[in-house]
Amino acid sequence: MGLFEKHQDFLNDAIKALHERNFYAAYPEFPSKEIYGENADADGQEFFKKSFGKRFEELKSDGAEGWVGGEESPYLGDKLGISYPYFSSDDLIAKAETVSEIWRNQSPEDRAGILIESLEGMRSRFFDIAYATMHTTGQGYMMAFQASGPHGADRAMEAIAAGYEELKRFPETASWVKPMGKYEIRLRKSWIAQPKGISLVIGCSTFPTWNSTPGLYASLITGNPVIVKPHPKAILPMAIVVAEIQKTLRAAGLPEEICQMAPDTLEKPITKELAENTSVALIDYTGGPSFGDYVEGLSGKTVFTEKTGVNSVILHSVDDIEKVAQNLGFSIALYSGQMCTAPQNIFVPKEGVATPDGHVSAARFAEVLKDSIKGLVENPKAGPFVLGAIQNENTSNRVKQFEAGELVLEDGEIENPMFKNARTLSPKVVLVNTSDRERFSEELFGPLAMVIETQNIEESIELAADLAKKHGAISCGAYTSDNNVKNQIMNRMASSFTPVSFNLTGNIYLNQHAAFSDFHVTGGNPAGNASFTNPEFVIKRFVWVGFREPEK
Amino acid sequence: MGLFEKHQDFLNDAIKALHERNFYAAYPEFPSKEIYGENADADGQEFFKKSFGKRFEELKSDGAEGWVGGEESPYLGDKLGISYPYFSSDDLIAKAETVSEIWRNQSPEDRAGILIESLEGMRSRFFDIAYATMHTTGQGYMMAFQASGPHGADRAMEAIAAGYEELKRFPETASWVKPMGKYEIRLRKSWIAQPKGISLVIGCSTFPTWNSTPGLYASLITGNPVIVKPHPKAILPMAIVVAEIQKTLRAAGLPEEICQMAPDTLEKPITKELAENTSVALIDYTGGPSFGDYVEGLSGKTVFTEKTGVNSVILHSVDDIEKVAQNLGFSIALYSGQMCTAPQNIFVPKEGVATPDGHVSAARFAEVLKDSIKGLVENPKAGPFVLGAIQNENTSNRVKQFEAGELVLEDGEIENPMFKNARTLSPKVVLVNTSDRERFSEELFGPLAMVIETQNIEESIELAADLAKKHGAISCGAYTSDNNVKNQIMNRMASSFTPVSFNLTGNIYLNQHAAFSDFHVTGGNPAGNASFTNPEFVIKRFVWVGFREPEK
Repeated sequence: MGLFEKHQDFLNDAIKALHERNFYAAYPEFPSKEIYGENADADGQEFFKKSFGKRFEELKSDGAEGWVGGEESPYLGDKLGISYPYFSSDDLIAKAETVSEIWRNQSPEDRAGILIESLEGMRSRFFDIAYATMHTTGQGYMMAFQASGPHGADRAMEAIAAGYEELKRFPETASWVKPMGKYEIRLRKSWIAQPKGISLVIGCSTFPTWNSTPGLYASLITGNPVIVKPHPKAILPMAIVVAEIQKTLRAAGLPEEICQMAPDTLEKPITKELAENTSVALIDYTGGPSFGDYVEGLSGKTVFTEKTGVNSVILHSVDDIEKVAQNLGFSIALYSGQMCTAPQNIFVPKEGVATPDGHVSAARFAEVLKDSIKGLVENPKAGPFVLGAIQNENTSNRVKQFEAGELVLEDGEIENPMFKNARTLSPKVVLVNTSDRERFSEELFGPLAMVIETQNIEESIELAADLAKKHGAISCGAYTSDNNVKNQIMNRMASSFTPVSFNLTGNIYLNQHAAFSDFHVTGGNPAGNASFTNPEFVIKRFVWVGFREPEK
Repeated sequence: MGLFEKHQDFLNDAIKALHERNFYAAYPEFPSKEIYGENADADGQEFFKKSFGKRFEELKSDGAEGWVGGEESPYLGDKLGISYPYFSSDDLIAKAETVSEIWRNQSPEDRAGILIESLEGMRSRFFDIAYATMHTTGQGYMMAFQASGPHGADRAMEAIAAGYEELKRFPETASWVKPMGKYEIRLRKSWIAQPKGISLVIGCSTFPTWNSTPGLYASLITGNPVIVKPHPKAILPMAIVVAEIQKTLRAAGLPEEICQMAPDTLEKPITKELAENTSVALIDYTGGPSFGDYVEGLSGKTVFTEKTGVNSVILHSVDDIEKVAQNLGFSIALYSGQMCTAPQNIFVPKEGVATPDGHVSAARFAEVLKDSIKGLVENPKAGPFVLGAIQNENTSNRVKQFEAGELVLEDGEIENPMFKNARTLSPKVVLVNTSDRERFSEELFGPLAMVIETQNIEESIELAADLAKKHGAISCGAYTSDNNVKNQIMNRMASSFTPVSFNLTGNIYLNQHAAFSDFHVTGGNPAGNASFTNPEFVIKRFVWVGFREPEK
């Protein structure tokens, strides 16, 4: 049985899920022993410990110019000392070109089979990836497991399903019979989905697999060889993924160079060299807006970006203000706000938020929010694990130095019981008004939230929509029990191409975007031009080319 | 019965045709009296005569700043004197913004119903449009009828079908039920296809409706208001189409400004003002490459272009060299080569084209081609009608002045029995070799073909593929009975994203791209970045935006 046949039902389920958009987890998200095996977690810890200070030998390293690496653990406060085979950009491009025809000539079925098989390999490494992710990004264990493991694999599977569906959208051949009165013209036509060329996937330091697997698998399923350029501070998680892909390719008798890893260092980056190479046709990018704008500005490339945005919450009327504050407090604290979907600006109208017990002013809501965050942060069984660690010192410094309006909750280090040297920072909350627009128009990545008093609900909506349009937004929360206000919010945020989560309380948060259901980033505002995974995300990676000839 | 119900079966047939890619003519292409009515042709002539020197009163003209027009008939050698209501770009944009919400809020069903109804209106004007097209573009009567009428309407219907299908691709709402062990989280999710914004459709002077209806209807079906900016020398054909759309909108109780006409003059063009306006989100452009590059370079816009290319024919082995020359001769002569799909470069290997009677050299083939073209051009019952007239004097001048290699067939004026003042030019044919590469690398729009002697078939293929990659190509012809050579051509031309027609003889030509079957322009090489009508052509005009809330 071939790999396609082996995984065909799974693929069909995924395609179905893509269209139903109900809950679907291709890979179970809970790190359960029943699902992943009794020793999986311990093996993952062991793998991580053994990797320390060594060469990562799983990637194809023939002809490597050297070994590089500069990762540091935000938990350990120390270098990992892991090194990876280094190749020059010219070498990487030349190898990708050499194998491009081989990969292009695989059928969509064969490519799908191989790629899903590689996800089985990734599945067997979910705990290795989890520890690798913790100790590069600073994510808490649970998020590191879920986001980098099952959710990352889900997003990959989603891209495979979407790509496969598009590749099969039109018939491979058709008889074209044109009636001409007394006779007819008959042509045999055929079409191929020609891959655009070499694909470059540029990773980020906070979600190294989740943000990179969609582009990686979308490019591969549509026939493009891929070069993965991880963030120099978060190489290991993707190194494992790429190693598993290379293993599957090798087992299928194909060259590993169809998917290459291109590690570099902060001191000698190779991203621009790769991105500007004329052979690179596709670029996926996740990261800061200034490099993102550079990537989007490269001519002759098809580019998919996720940059950052200014995410808003609009408060109007709620049943239970405490529950709302708990939900938002968790959203702000989760991974110390180092998520592109984390809320930053919370707009409260001057008259306050309507509740069954009367109106709650912005100042009062800021206090309730403070209490909710403090309750979470100071709970030793929850706080350190929800917050995780700060990936980059600059993030800590920016939050620490931030001043605006009235300080409601000061940021601070919190102790992590497992990692004494962890770089931590609990959220800062400030109370401002609309005269501080300049301050809340910036994207302030990290544990920082602003409660902003506005004139009225209309101004709240206008500000949220306008910030999204000008600076981008990936998420938006809104709380209202008034249908008119709800429609107004939907209408205005839709104009700014921003999704909205209404009235979330309990264990579901506006930061979460589920594969097979939520399109992540709309692609319509400055937060990014691509969306996981809408049809555009796969279609733009290949070109339909037709052939025709007289039918015999 | 609503308009959607009225046209639902027709729409379903069109969607089916889009996927089967067999022959499908939504609108019959033959100007038959049985189909279009006994007096339709006479009425069309009458309409055109009556339009002369008058205001075109069918477009909404309230608040027009004046009336403009500068069309000239390449057949009559005279100005048409027709004028159209002129609005400033600011006025056009402001009006489009005013109506955008109204149009966006129409359901996909309502938009489809209205747009198909407008095509019924266009159908009733096919002969008006045919004469309008003849006397602006110089096309022969039959082409003017077919291309601007039924084929233009087919391409519009294709865009409606493709757009409607994409808009219905995902459910409007879904229940998202996530199992959480002892309980479950339930969200009600919904998605809308948010139109990107104001759409600008920039027309060309040679195929004013065929090249503009796809973008126009693709933008409208996906909810974007459209401003049609016709070429100043070919306004009337699109004025009729837009008038019919406005009529249908009015009858449906909707503002005509959902589809506006923006005529201008060569002396005072407004295209750049419109294109650069920040409210314009979508631009469709057909025309020359330099303005096309400018449009593609505008930042923050979603752009669809069809520019021009250097189309090649590769000769290797044929059954009947005369039949091949007849077919190619017709392709070169048709509308005097003023087609973006017309062949320009014919590559013949040094050893000649293999035929059952031995090899035919490049020089010999040039002679056979010359005879075929002369036979067609000098046939008074065919020549003038196949050639039509030259739209732009620059085209004539360029061909007349062109010199390279050995002159095989001199261009010349030919007499049109119906129009004494017609600006005509029969094809020029030259014989060159690969040292003249600089000459045959230019796109030489108009009646001009080069027979090029190459070292061997491999060089022919490389040149064709390389020119397509560097300068763009929209079509390619190839003649071979050798399967290896065929595969080599498919492989290399696919790498340059160029479709190939093999071994065409008889009444089917490489210039012809049929709606619902042939993707016109692949979008992968410099000849243009868009394709009629692949899914990308419609998907990029809107953005999926999701909403979610707890399910009650």
